[in-house]
Amino acid sequence: MADISQEELDDIYTFAVQLGKDAGKMLLEAAKLRMVDDGEEQKEQQHVQKENAVDLVTETDENVEAFIKSRISERYPSHKFVGEESYSKGASRDYLIDDSPTWCVDPLDGTVNYIHLFPMFCVSIGFIHKSKPLIGVIFAPFLNQFFSSCSGRGAWLNETQRLPLVRNPVPPMPARAPSGCVFSCEWGKDRKDHPDGNMHRKIESFVNMAAEVGGRSGRGGMVHGVRCLGSATLDLAYIAMGSFDIWWEGGCWEWDVAAGVAIVLEAGGLVTTANPPEDHLNAPIEEVRLGSRLYLAIRPAGPSPTETGRQTQERTVREVWARVRNLDYSRPGA
Amino acid sequence: MADISQEELDDIYTFAVQLGKDAGKMLLEAAKLRMVDDGEEQKEQQHVQKENAVDLVTETDENVEAFIKSRISERYPSHKFVGEESYSKGASRDYLIDDSPTWCVDPLDGTVNYIHLFPMFCVSIGFIHKSKPLIGVIFAPFLNQFFSSCSGRGAWLNETQRLPLVRNPVPPMPARAPSGCVFSCEWGKDRKDHPDGNMHRKIESFVNMAAEVGGRSGRGGMVHGVRCLGSATLDLAYIAMGSFDIWWEGGCWEWDVAAGVAIVLEAGGLVTTANPPEDHLNAPIEEVRLGSRLYLAIRPAGPSPTETGRQTQERTVREVWARVRNLDYSRPGA
Repeated sequence: MADISQEELDDIYTFAVQLGKDAGKMLLEAAKLRMVDDGEEQKEQQHVQKENAVDLVTETDENVEAFIKSRISERYPSHKFVGEESYSKGASRDYLIDDSPTWCVDPLDGTVNYIHLFPMFCVSIGFIHKSKPLIGVIFAPFLNQFFSSCSGRGAWLNETQRLPLVRNPVPPMPARAPSGCVFSCEWGKDRKDHPDGNMHRKIESFVNMAAEVGGRSGRGGMVHGVRCLGSATLDLAYIAMGSFDIWWEGGCWEWDVAAGVAIVLEAGGLVTTANPPEDHLNAPIEEVRLGSRLYLAIRPAGPSPTETGRQTQERTVREVWARVRNLDYSRPGA
Repeated sequence: MADISQEELDDIYTFAVQLGKDAGKMLLEAAKLRMVDDGEEQKEQQHVQKENAVDLVTETDENVEAFIKSRISERYPSHKFVGEESYSKGASRDYLIDDSPTWCVDPLDGTVNYIHLFPMFCVSIGFIHKSKPLIGVIFAPFLNQFFSSCSGRGAWLNETQRLPLVRNPVPPMPARAPSGCVFSCEWGKDRKDHPDGNMHRKIESFVNMAAEVGGRSGRGGMVHGVRCLGSATLDLAYIAMGSFDIWWEGGCWEWDVAAGVAIVLEAGGLVTTANPPEDHLNAPIEEVRLGSRLYLAIRPAGPSPTETGRQTQERTVREVWARVRNLDYSRPGA
């Protein structure tokens, strides 16, 4: 597989940015059909109950994915396409990303939010080559927040504000992390009430991260705040901004994270696995495998007086690993 | 105490809307001083470490409150003013709201978010008369979301979109609520690792709400999603929008909720106490006491084929009460 030059990559980036804007606009327009402006209340409208919203949302999801896929195949017919909707209709959940130039797309991340019209939803478009996420575009149209990055070109909010937001200098991770950190996590869909199920593994981990220092038999992390947005993609966007310090999650898929991981890495963040290795104090901190369904992301960090930025991030990874349980998600081929 | 006419109230509303816009702008400008635009990186800048942000934020908080307070005292010298900063500097935590026309203000709600530059922060301005919250103004300037309401004039997003968003008709609460609901809650600051402490009372309640139906000895609520934003004020704003269905919280104060409660009530929501009464199936559902530090809010709801909107809300309140523990927050004078 030939390398892609910076010039080619810049072209792909320009294309991806426009694609993200157009797709996000589709999402917002479909959402607005479910609202009624006060002035329009007299007009005949398609009345939609919140309970019926699910079907409409599925339709939007599919329409937006079809739109993105057709635009890409027109412009880059040789590129591969991996999308959430294409997967969910197929029989296989095998990991399909290889060394080819590949687009990895979630037309609508934060589906539950979208159903309920909570603004934390977005389109997520990642471009991957040789298994490296090189371009990320995330657009949350109800928030007017557009995140983008291209390898070598930086990571951006609304195309003008470079990420992370605080950057001159970029602060190190706190000396006593996870204390002082905003910790972002998601409850997810797996709610089985079994002591060894993923819900209880997550809760135990969340409580360890949140409890006072000294609590939980020494595991208390006293994070500054716990946040749950309901969108893995936006969790990663806020890690890239530096707004969230730590995101720990299991269960989502490569289309949920491809664009976000590209943006976090380009901004200077670290992404590895959620599950602590056996020797969590000394094991090498491996690069994230996109299809692993297990993710731990740390925000961009600069040096402290005694550590490099990377050292402050790795120290934080190990402090998280010391407090979380292994999650039970697996993946054929990843 | 004389009544306030709708005309007088409309004037106060116009004033409050402009005040909220100006105060939110101050918050955003102060936040931007902590970021550096890429083009400006060469210029000499006041470099601010994330760790030092707390002092700056406290300063902003105080400045914005002083600004709001002085504007109000110029325009309405006879009105009372209750603000977070005035309280925290005083010795007493007594509840000070009585029948007088009173402004209840949080210059910065979502302080932890603001410190970390996570966009979920806002200014919150409530106007109360005869202990009823009549006007609410909430501005989240980093999200460009402006919420406002005036008794008799409706509740609004960005002054043009009436709340709740889905309104023709407004959907009832789901038949199997809390299943199908977005549940919003906060971990808060009290992280003592004691089985009877507020953190464990909250966690147990959250897990009951989230677990599969049939789980947790029959208490599993299988909510559609769990959300934690780190701002009580914005939680209430999203309840008024209809984006969140249920918000359950203890520990915050009247300035955190005054504006939000005004907006939720004007939009058609229900606000009562977080703590289940002894006979939670039959006890009357009392109106929220602003100073109670215990809050349960249900989104605006319309009728189902068999119930009024209010009945669907009350049914939901009782289903929440059946799943949550009493929280241990109290208040002198409230």
